[in-house]
Amino acid sequence: MSWNPELETAFSPKVVAMVGVSANTKRGAPWRPGASSFVTCYEELGFQGRIYPVNPKATEIMGLKTYHSVSSIPEPVDLVIVSVPAQALPDVLEDCIAANAKNIHVFTAGFEETGEEEAIELGSRVRQIALNGGLRIIGPNCMGLYVPRAGIGSFERLSSESGPVALLSQSGGHCNWFSHYGPDYGIKFSKVISFGNAYVLDSTDYLEYLASDPETEIICMYLEGVKDGVKLLRQVREINRVKPVILWKAGLTESGSRAVASHTGSLAGEEAIWRGFFAQTGAVPAFSLEEIAEMTMTFLYVKPPRGKRVAVIGLGGGSSVSSADVCAREGLEVPTLTRETQVELKKFISLAGASIKNPLDTGLVFRDVSLLEREIELVAADPLIDMIIVSPHLDMAKRVGPDQVDRLVKYLSDFSRDNAFDKPLVINFHSFANEPWENELRARLQVELPREGVPVFDSLVGASRSLARFFEYHQFLRRRAID
Amino acid sequence: MSWNPELETAFSPKVVAMVGVSANTKRGAPWRPGASSFVTCYEELGFQGRIYPVNPKATEIMGLKTYHSVSSIPEPVDLVIVSVPAQALPDVLEDCIAANAKNIHVFTAGFEETGEEEAIELGSRVRQIALNGGLRIIGPNCMGLYVPRAGIGSFERLSSESGPVALLSQSGGHCNWFSHYGPDYGIKFSKVISFGNAYVLDSTDYLEYLASDPETEIICMYLEGVKDGVKLLRQVREINRVKPVILWKAGLTESGSRAVASHTGSLAGEEAIWRGFFAQTGAVPAFSLEEIAEMTMTFLYVKPPRGKRVAVIGLGGGSSVSSADVCAREGLEVPTLTRETQVELKKFISLAGASIKNPLDTGLVFRDVSLLEREIELVAADPLIDMIIVSPHLDMAKRVGPDQVDRLVKYLSDFSRDNAFDKPLVINFHSFANEPWENELRARLQVELPREGVPVFDSLVGASRSLARFFEYHQFLRRRAID
Repeated sequence: MSWNPELETAFSPKVVAMVGVSANTKRGAPWRPGASSFVTCYEELGFQGRIYPVNPKATEIMGLKTYHSVSSIPEPVDLVIVSVPAQALPDVLEDCIAANAKNIHVFTAGFEETGEEEAIELGSRVRQIALNGGLRIIGPNCMGLYVPRAGIGSFERLSSESGPVALLSQSGGHCNWFSHYGPDYGIKFSKVISFGNAYVLDSTDYLEYLASDPETEIICMYLEGVKDGVKLLRQVREINRVKPVILWKAGLTESGSRAVASHTGSLAGEEAIWRGFFAQTGAVPAFSLEEIAEMTMTFLYVKPPRGKRVAVIGLGGGSSVSSADVCAREGLEVPTLTRETQVELKKFISLAGASIKNPLDTGLVFRDVSLLEREIELVAADPLIDMIIVSPHLDMAKRVGPDQVDRLVKYLSDFSRDNAFDKPLVINFHSFANEPWENELRARLQVELPREGVPVFDSLVGASRSLARFFEYHQFLRRRAID
Repeated sequence: MSWNPELETAFSPKVVAMVGVSANTKRGAPWRPGASSFVTCYEELGFQGRIYPVNPKATEIMGLKTYHSVSSIPEPVDLVIVSVPAQALPDVLEDCIAANAKNIHVFTAGFEETGEEEAIELGSRVRQIALNGGLRIIGPNCMGLYVPRAGIGSFERLSSESGPVALLSQSGGHCNWFSHYGPDYGIKFSKVISFGNAYVLDSTDYLEYLASDPETEIICMYLEGVKDGVKLLRQVREINRVKPVILWKAGLTESGSRAVASHTGSLAGEEAIWRGFFAQTGAVPAFSLEEIAEMTMTFLYVKPPRGKRVAVIGLGGGSSVSSADVCAREGLEVPTLTRETQVELKKFISLAGASIKNPLDTGLVFRDVSLLEREIELVAADPLIDMIIVSPHLDMAKRVGPDQVDRLVKYLSDFSRDNAFDKPLVINFHSFANEPWENELRARLQVELPREGVPVFDSLVGASRSLARFFEYHQFLRRRAID
């Protein structure tokens, strides 16, 4: 796969033209999708290049000299962002061609996704102009690019920290959500790409770019439709060996497929075809943004388990039963611990109202951090266990006090870093009171623990699903290595 | 089904003995499962009867005169709560028989659920003593009864308000969770029953009681195992006509079934059998406490829809697609709105970057409450639509201001109360920033709106699943009425 140097200028532009910035745009105005807000977004992200607003009716906007057209800008333009009414788009594109500006993010919407005849026709014209002029169109009907390292992005309050995760999405709203929530899961971004109706550049083009992008290690995708399915399959099969591909294929139900047509005017494709796609590529399936985030967190921070046998350390007999059901449904095994482990556990755990078989229901250890540590060690040493989910109630913190919480965080971090047992451990917090101190503690640990290699999940379903798919990914690679 | 007057005294006791209250129990000590904490719980709930702590080594505990045995208490005892080590249980039960006290909540655990031979034998002995002595044992290994009207309960900080919902559960932890979180879903309780290993009274006995209980209108159940499945099936089939039965049958996976044995020593039964059970009874299936809570909220506050065709009013094209997928997967239909409705919507909604087909992706209406109201009216009037899910981002509140939020709450309440369109409407809030003001607003609306007949769901999955099962319940009743 070859590096695409022309596309690279779109991802790290020095000169950006923003067409359609309103003449009375003010700094500090509430964010609204469109070029008028993008200027502020760039500035928030510390963009170091030059921004040229384009508006035929203004000479200066927010202190920036404003040009009447792209072709009147006095230097070569690396990226043009177009946010004008749909009818005005053909002229703007002709202007870009005249200016020899090739990378065009078309925010403008209102084409085949409306289902209106006129709008569909206009879309065809736009596509033709772009192809004739050799324009690399990102969109139309999309939010374009967020690249923290380059200081560019179309949403407010984005993080300026870079990281190894890319998102490639036909939904700008999903980009918005993921870009903002990623950090809560310990996720930082290399490139976030909203590409909408994909007139010129399609998922396969961006994927080619991300495959060669040295900054990107994990690729998340939200796809509605694909133009060249065979190419995508071949690409993902290849890339997935090196950079895990986590893919949400939306619109697989009949209703969803209809919604796809109204959103990006794409053809969603049949469910059976996509099942085959996943089976052949080994791509990691997801069905929501939360799932994408949870799985990305898992790929980022968890060491591959040797098998899929999980131990769950929790609280409450009913929870044990549902934990076992949940893990089994997600594809994990929940074996009974060995006799030896049980004998050791019995030395400090009374069996009345408890269970040490697995899932473990041992309330005692959530009142004494040293006992929890001892239990984790014993479970981790059990040869029947490949991975551990610890599932404490947050109100444990109130019982043991802040010192012991810090001790536990350190213990878990050491456990993960030293990896003496070669078994991943993840956390699933329960909350019982929904009190402010609990929400604060959860928010803090949700950021601190993943950084130390201990992912934190909101639900046991999320934890077990992510671990199961993570294991299956590595199993797929192992099998393919043997083939 | 006959009212059981003897059981009634257990649910509204005037005289309660608590065996095993520790001699040095202090008021205000942190709650821990066991009789020592139960005294405080009763007091918190405003229990108006008399509490007799029983402890052979004390004469007074927390200012209450303490007795050496149940039989030394100077008046007839309506309910005995036993929280002693398992080995001491047989003697306590003999004491109860001598005192002619029949209703015994056995908190004590440590029997067949441990899998230990000695403990299993002890359990058989206990069961034999109870049967010989005609004791109505609740438990063992359980948290017993929470009845707000009677001022009794085993957990701290319980609500003292009564309501129409009963929970019957083999897990005390689940009772704890549901009792505390119920109010967040607008749920208040008639009776919450934790019955553990079910030595004497089994689910079918409690169910008989709840069926005749005038205070109970909806029955939620968490079951691990059942002694008399045929009886349960007959009962649920009958009761479900009048009082919806929402049932979580746990332990249906192999791992879950093993966990059931370790928890309440029950036999979980096969998945196929339980599928048949649901098909024959029309009971509403649930697979977690959250699902139980969401469905209970739906049964409490939603008027039965005539069909299963849903309109989703949301924000973002990607969200539209996933909304359609989610609704379809949960069993709802998402039809395209009629041409007439679309024509009316187009009068105030531009199609660029929007969709008015269904799901509706119309960002505009979330910036102007009057437009949202207009949109809801039009969608509700569409003959192809049976129910509506409105799915706003919470940050809408920041855009429109508190006055408009109040206006919207009033509009939604009126919509639901007047029910002019005969179509239920529910809310699914998205949150984008996780900021304190958002959490506060969500918490407030989550309580206010259900009270006005507008249930609020955390996720679209929850909303569509609840509506689908709610519709299926009523469909089942209609079909049976025809049969």
